[in-house]
Amino acid sequence: MIQSVAFIGLGAMGYRMAAHLPKHFDTVYVWNRNFDKAKQHATEFGTLAVELQQAVQADIIFSCLPTSADVEALIANIDIRAGSIWVDCTSGVPSSAKQLAPLFQQHGASYLDAPVSGQTIGAENATLTFMLGGDATAFNEAFPAIQTMGKLIQHVGESGAGFAVKAVNNMLMAVNLCAASEGLTVLKAHGVDLHAALDCINASSGKSNATETILPQRVLNRSFPLTFALPLLAKDTGIAVDLVRGAKLSAPVISLTQSLVQIASDTAQANSDFSTVAKMYESWSNITIE
Amino acid sequence: MIQSVAFIGLGAMGYRMAAHLPKHFDTVYVWNRNFDKAKQHATEFGTLAVELQQAVQADIIFSCLPTSADVEALIANIDIRAGSIWVDCTSGVPSSAKQLAPLFQQHGASYLDAPVSGQTIGAENATLTFMLGGDATAFNEAFPAIQTMGKLIQHVGESGAGFAVKAVNNMLMAVNLCAASEGLTVLKAHGVDLHAALDCINASSGKSNATETILPQRVLNRSFPLTFALPLLAKDTGIAVDLVRGAKLSAPVISLTQSLVQIASDTAQANSDFSTVAKMYESWSNITIE
Amino acid sequence: MIQSVAFIGLGAMGYRMAAHLPKHFDTVYVWNRNFDKAKQHATEFGTLAVELQQAVQADIIFSCLPTSADVEALIANIDIRAGSIWVDCTSGVPSSAKQLAPLFQQHGASYLDAPVSGQTIGAENATLTFMLGGDATAFNEAFPAIQTMGKLIQHVGESGAGFAVKAVNNMLMAVNLCAASEGLTVLKAHGVDLHAALDCINASSGKSNATETILPQRVLNRSFPLTFALPLLAKDTGIAVDLVRGAKLSAPVISLTQSLVQIASDTAQANSDFSTVAKMYESWSNITIE
Amino acid sequence: MIQSVAFIGLGAMGYRMAAHLPKHFDTVYVWNRNFDKAKQHATEFGTLAVELQQAVQADIIFSCLPTSADVEALIANIDIRAGSIWVDCTSGVPSSAKQLAPLFQQHGASYLDAPVSGQTIGAENATLTFMLGGDATAFNEAFPAIQTMGKLIQHVGESGAGFAVKAVNNMLMAVNLCAASEGLTVLKAHGVDLHAALDCINASSGKSNATETILPQRVLNRSFPLTFALPLLAKDTGIAVDLVRGAKLSAPVISLTQSLVQIASDTAQANSDFSTVAKMYESWSNITIE
Repeated sequence: MIQSVAFIGLGAMGYRMAAHLPKHFDTVYVWNRNFDKAKQHATEFGTLAVELQQAVQADIIFSCLPTSADVEALIANIDIRAGSIWVDCTSGVPSSAKQLAPLFQQHGASYLDAPVSGQTIGAENATLTFMLGGDATAFNEAFPAIQTMGKLIQHVGESGAGFAVKAVNNMLMAVNLCAASEGLTVLKAHGVDLHAALDCINASSGKSNATETILPQRVLNRSFPLTFALPLLAKDTGIAVDLVRGAKLSAPVISLTQSLVQIASDTAQANSDFSTVAKMYESWSNITIE
Repeated sequence: MIQSVAFIGLGAMGYRMAAHLPKHFDTVYVWNRNFDKAKQHATEFGTLAVELQQAVQADIIFSCLPTSADVEALIANIDIRAGSIWVDCTSGVPSSAKQLAPLFQQHGASYLDAPVSGQTIGAENATLTFMLGGDATAFNEAFPAIQTMGKLIQHVGESGAGFAVKAVNNMLMAVNLCAASEGLTVLKAHGVDLHAALDCINASSGKSNATETILPQRVLNRSFPLTFALPLLAKDTGIAVDLVRGAKLSAPVISLTQSLVQIASDTAQANSDFSTVAKMYESWSNITIE
Repeated sequence: MIQSVAFIGLGAMGYRMAAHLPKHFDTVYVWNRNFDKAKQHATEFGTLAVELQQAVQADIIFSCLPTSADVEALIANIDIRAGSIWVDCTSGVPSSAKQLAPLFQQHGASYLDAPVSGQTIGAENATLTFMLGGDATAFNEAFPAIQTMGKLIQHVGESGAGFAVKAVNNMLMAVNLCAASEGLTVLKAHGVDLHAALDCINASSGKSNATETILPQRVLNRSFPLTFALPLLAKDTGIAVDLVRGAKLSAPVISLTQSLVQIASDTAQANSDFSTVAKMYESWSNITIE
Repeated sequence: MIQSVAFIGLGAMGYRMAAHLPKHFDTVYVWNRNFDKAKQHATEFGTLAVELQQAVQADIIFSCLPTSADVEALIANIDIRAGSIWVDCTSGVPSSAKQLAPLFQQHGASYLDAPVSGQTIGAENATLTFMLGGDATAFNEAFPAIQTMGKLIQHVGESGAGFAVKAVNNMLMAVNLCAASEGLTVLKAHGVDLHAALDCINASSGKSNATETILPQRVLNRSFPLTFALPLLAKDTGIAVDLVRGAKLSAPVISLTQSLVQIASDTAQANSDFSTVAKMYESWSNITIE
């Protein structure tokens, strides 16, 4: 029976995710490096803004930080409570999960890698997808708390499996986006109307989230709204490539796409949305994807 | 006002497509190289199996052949009727359309490149997507006949634009399939359950027709049903690469994928479905995508 | 017995090549679109600046133009003399040679594709390499004239084979240059001294003309002298890729390199030497290869 | 003044390298896991076959093992002597050198990463190239001992730099080999004589060690002698890719080549020479490179 939950890291995702917890649990701690944000959350949603050491004494602790390195640094400075379950929603590194899970186990606690997809709108509407790696018993125990924020809650394997699936998902998104950007550039060069072309593709076998959503809603309308920063996509595609290397496999399309996303990230303006990958192709071809 | 229509090429697609025409037009000619097929179609659907020279005298002539070379060879041997509109549903080559369109114009006729997507099930249910290139007036005139077989009928640009969109669509499908095969191989190597992983991806940003349909329905269940032959995908991805070259553009992901599909096609068993691209990755990694 | 020779196209290469002919033959015609150049050549080397129609009546006609399209346009406007042998030193397209050779044969003449390597210094010193495609008898007849300008005169196959070898040679140079640029960027990022690294590589298995000559003499010393324009390299690598496509083969490294050279060419300043491919990598990595 | 030297690891390279030491030093220890090899070396060359613990008390200790992991395991079980210099000729991992160098420093000793190139013939003739990373003073002190086995002894940077240069060298060799294999396959498909083509390329800008040595001496003559095992090349190209990742750079040609070498290694027969990379292309194209 879950008595208390905590949420650590109130960024664009975490702030919205944590807002659902007070509807289901009496004691909801929140903590954030910039503590004013935690106090604001408490005022707005009835959570309790507390010191980090108190937050991590909850039964279920969620974290949502930029990188696994941030999570590791934070965990290095806290006392792990026996019986607690740490649910790490960071888009992290599988090898980090494989080190943290046994550490928690030594303290009689559990660590689950639990990255999410669904963006801020999914966080707001509690319709996120959670992909979890780690101990099945801990997964079942934490499930009621996770469920308050998500729609699809999927256990995908041992520790690190959640992070792995997230990295591969983002990699596939990157591949599909690169390929679609290339394809539309080529079609434009041959005088094809891109809106009409996307209509056809989205009714056909070539469709993907990139052609259905990213290109029409971010690129063709020239909005490129910053909701997922390009360097984070470069980080995630890098994690996917490290998984390839770790398994001594060959994944040429994935490897090439990581190179391309890295170039896009290294040559983009600051604060660029991931969809500006398309602008890299525009600069190469002198063709505007619109 | 369309008085007569014809359908040339009664393969797996054409046979089903032509079946809808008698519901809307009194005079429907059909012709096929293996003429028994035309006679069978006439018996089954009330069409008229006629000589090629008669078929091509219809107001609207549909063709659906394996390649543009087949279409060109056939047209070289017929009399083009003034006022007729040829609607070529072949997955053809844009440069061929750019040569045929002016040839028809010289005869006071029109040629539209009009490839389709939707597979045999779409042909059967008249829910195909038609992507058309060529003269807008001819498009409007032929529209009522095309509409009897399709759901989305889209004019995408000048002659060749339809073929170009189809080639790019199939290329994107190939890219998404290759990348997803790579990604699932990597996840399997890291002990991830692939069905659970696909559930997550299909609720997330990495989804595509490859992850939603091809992999679960053809690869993971080990069925690999032959509905679209791998060499035809190699042909289509080759057309896409030729478009890249023709526009002097750079499309690295598309180019690499064409290389991979070519390898898959050249090393696959005869009569392999396009989804056996996944088996190439399996042979490289010694991992089964299931 | 060769009585007369002609040289058409007095660019940086042709001007120097044609200078050797008067040492061996009494009658040497020269022609150039900008005719002043032909007259200057006549004055300087004792050749005969004549009208194109006269030049092409020589026993052996050399041409050295920017592209096969230029050669085709020129040949379309002349009378092909029976018994003459046209030796085309352009870095041309194999398919063009396959069309021109039978055309000459119809006139009782011969066409040999005969691209050269060795740069202007090789042209000056008559140490060029000639790679020839076409009829072996014509090759033997033209040999004495070719020999006056080259060191290695190699018959490599049927019509188009010479152009093919040249395109592949330049492609390999491009691959080796791209890879070496990547490798040096990575080493620099890890604090390695690049001159010392090149010394090691050039004494080891990784050496190539790129590491032995291009990088030390053009890139590391920041000179980038314009001797071979980057767009011409893009053209040549494109020919190589077209050969891959024409044979329905898969050549992933070659295809990717063509994409990269195309990007480099499309984003470089005007009048950039081919070695500025290295600058593309510098702009991506913010690392200077020096 | 060097009083004693040791050589650890008497494989195909080490056995030949250690043979030169007794010509210059009175006390030369040798050790090998299979100790009979050490005794054989002592008999043949006048070295001293001793226990590992004694060997590592020499002034200069050379090691030449399959991987950095082997070196690390060995060093974990010995006493590092103050004042000694360990010269590691393994083709190792830069990150390993960065960990071992400070460990030796804590013991008042030095560790230099010192991979070699030149193959067994270079080891036999003392004409190897040594590329060294680490402390410059230690480099100078060890120089007289290294010099007895090599021709070019190059200090390339801090700890790890030697391993990095070796990995990049082998990667460039792999790239050049892959590209040349692709190029020759394409030329063969177009009917070109490959020996004649290589003659031209080797007199031109596309030449590399792959076209000058590997292809003529191992592939075209169908000998594929096992002197450098394909899995070791896959390991080395993997190290190069890890360097790219570590520096957060983009190196598309290098990344793709690593994928290809990995495929070649995973699908080759046991005990295949690195040159069998060419056979992978043969199996894809059904063309023999001869």
